Amino acid sequence: MAQSSDLEQAISTLVNQFHSASSNGSGTLKTDEFKNLLSSQMPNMVKGIATEQGLGEIMRKMGVADGEGISFKNFWSLIQNVATNQHSILAAAQKAGCSCILL
Amino acid sequence: MAQSSDLEQAISTLVNQFHSASSNGSGTLKTDEFKNLLSSQMPNMVKGIATEQGLGEIMRKMGVADGEGISFKNFWSLIQNVATNQHSILAAAQKAGCSCILL
Repeated sequence: MAQSSDLEQAISTLVNQFHSASSNGSGTLKTDEFKNLLSSQMPNMVKGIATEQGLGEIMRKMGVADGEGISFKNFWSLIQNVATNQHSILAAAQKAGCSCILL
Repeated sequence: MAQSSDLEQAISTLVNQFHSASSNGSGTLKTDEFKNLLSSQMPNMVKGIATEQGLGEIMRKMGVADGEGISFKNFWSLIQNVATNQHSILAAAQKAGCSCILL
């Protein structure tokens, strides 16, 4: 593959981070693996994982069934939510006349 | 916001790239702006934009209505498709015993 662009590298990062978090390469994460991924990789954008209740709520919103592993599809639903939120913040800021990017 | 992780930076990159491609800050891209974004930022992961037919096909799959701009939701549907493909490639490689990441 030719040199990757920033956008392509960003997509690869999302996919790779999910895979790196899985200890057994099964394609799904155990709850503990998922919790470690969130606390190390989403400290700013996802809040509330410190309590079992908060983590359970996040997983329910991602469509994870009780006692099941976290699939890439579940993970992607979280990423989509976060990205859509970030987009809304940026769109609102631009509307207010701010020429800015997310840091 | 505290220091961003790789994953958070990747999400910001996706959101920022979409916004930077818009000339008027309206929150949607014109077809030409979108085409420029794909050719500069997705040269490896999205093929077929060189012809009008190919670009039209991609935009239809993204849910863009004829004559409409490209919303973040449309853009995200493309990103999701690409990421899901990349995930499948990686999952298949891992199943075959390869311990690898996407470059």
